[in-house]
Amino acid sequence: MVRLALLQANSAVLDVHANCAAVDEAARTAAAAGAQLLLTPELFPVGYAPRRVRAELDPGTLPSIRQSLADIARRNGIALVQSLPAVTEAGEWQITATLVDENGSELLNYAKVHLFGPEERQAFSAAGAAPRVAEFQGLKTSVVICYDIEFPESVRAAAVRGAELLLVPTALAEGFDAVPQVLIRARALENQLTVAYANHAGTEEGLNFLGGSVIAAPDGALLAAAGAGTELLFAELPEPAVEGAGDVAYLRDRRPEIYRSWGS
Amino acid sequence: MVRLALLQANSAVLDVHANCAAVDEAARTAAAAGAQLLLTPELFPVGYAPRRVRAELDPGTLPSIRQSLADIARRNGIALVQSLPAVTEAGEWQITATLVDENGSELLNYAKVHLFGPEERQAFSAAGAAPRVAEFQGLKTSVVICYDIEFPESVRAAAVRGAELLLVPTALAEGFDAVPQVLIRARALENQLTVAYANHAGTEEGLNFLGGSVIAAPDGALLAAAGAGTELLFAELPEPAVEGAGDVAYLRDRRPEIYRSWGS
Repeated sequence: MVRLALLQANSAVLDVHANCAAVDEAARTAAAAGAQLLLTPELFPVGYAPRRVRAELDPGTLPSIRQSLADIARRNGIALVQSLPAVTEAGEWQITATLVDENGSELLNYAKVHLFGPEERQAFSAAGAAPRVAEFQGLKTSVVICYDIEFPESVRAAAVRGAELLLVPTALAEGFDAVPQVLIRARALENQLTVAYANHAGTEEGLNFLGGSVIAAPDGALLAAAGAGTELLFAELPEPAVEGAGDVAYLRDRRPEIYRSWGS
Repeated sequence: MVRLALLQANSAVLDVHANCAAVDEAARTAAAAGAQLLLTPELFPVGYAPRRVRAELDPGTLPSIRQSLADIARRNGIALVQSLPAVTEAGEWQITATLVDENGSELLNYAKVHLFGPEERQAFSAAGAAPRVAEFQGLKTSVVICYDIEFPESVRAAAVRGAELLLVPTALAEGFDAVPQVLIRARALENQLTVAYANHAGTEEGLNFLGGSVIAAPDGALLAAAGAGTELLFAELPEPAVEGAGDVAYLRDRRPEIYRSWGS
């Protein structure tokens, strides 16, 4: 049985030291509570402020920030999902999320496919690779970021690649309660996987975040749900369903060849 | 403004006369209440009993049942969505749903793509055509059936073809509350269209139906929701959203060329 911890918190924009300290403290608390994995919000170490991050963050510091976060995982003996900007070889800035194991070794790295709103699109470039799947504690695990999960196509792509656990750093503004309460539950149910969705809390660079992080089970039920403020959520993850068992088996019953013929 | 009526009711298996009388009465009540359209459940005129319907219904009677239902629409001056078996030229039985206008003229005919469970698959063949869209009272309208809507691919196909209103006859057993309460709301929200989902109530051929029919708005909110028993639901349908308005515009922001490259 995997025990997951999810950090919902306010990030201090461009105060990487303070934000990494908050991740370190959450990792220590989560590990002490028996969790094997800590999920953190989108761009948490730098703050969710696309324009300022792009203008003011020295990309030369990114490798050492990544290393600090891997060290936090290793020191606390807990796997970690963190989200940072990354600069491609072509010089494009992307929003990424990385799963490192409890030794600080990278298991997955994902770049966001669906950018949200004009500010994010000005600061970052959209990636195009499908979510990949890695084995973590016996669970086939995948990562997408924020707006990605509002598109059923992204989660389906992870599910058909075998994902049983989907980890989602996010930065969702207040007013969008239907995203965690309806869409996240639907993604879990329609793909028969567990979804953990970790949001910011409070205000960053004038943007008020919803909080409201959730962990949804493969039957669409919420295993845990956060309020509006800083919170460390925990959930015991259910065992993956046996594929094709029972009358409802969406991945068995979908008709990909037909969908392709529709060209939609 | 379009006013929609939705019939949730118990069907008497293979008592076509009684079931058509129930549709007629609902059409009269709905029209008197100012509705322009009445949506009825999956296979309502024959009852949801795939094995018995296939074994005992004389397919030679289907054209006259269709005509009776078109006459009900015309006599009551209200458009109607009804669901019946249909036999293809190749002799295959399908589950279909048909939208006729208030003159009894056919606007849309759809055949179910995702069959549910072994009994339905023994009795019927799955169709493969994408949902089409027709103009009804100024709304681009489409139809899918029951299990189809649990697959995001089917609703996306209707939405990219322009659907603003999706009409869904269903036959959903008790215990599946998450379908109307989570998945239907998600389909409406993620495609920014209105979804009406009409279920059976009570017991037919030993199967206990959930009731729980819903009408969900493009923001994922429920405009109307039925209890467990016979009910005629009404809703004023919201005006379609202006495409691409605001930061959230799923049909604008989806990336079909990328999804195709993923091959999922």
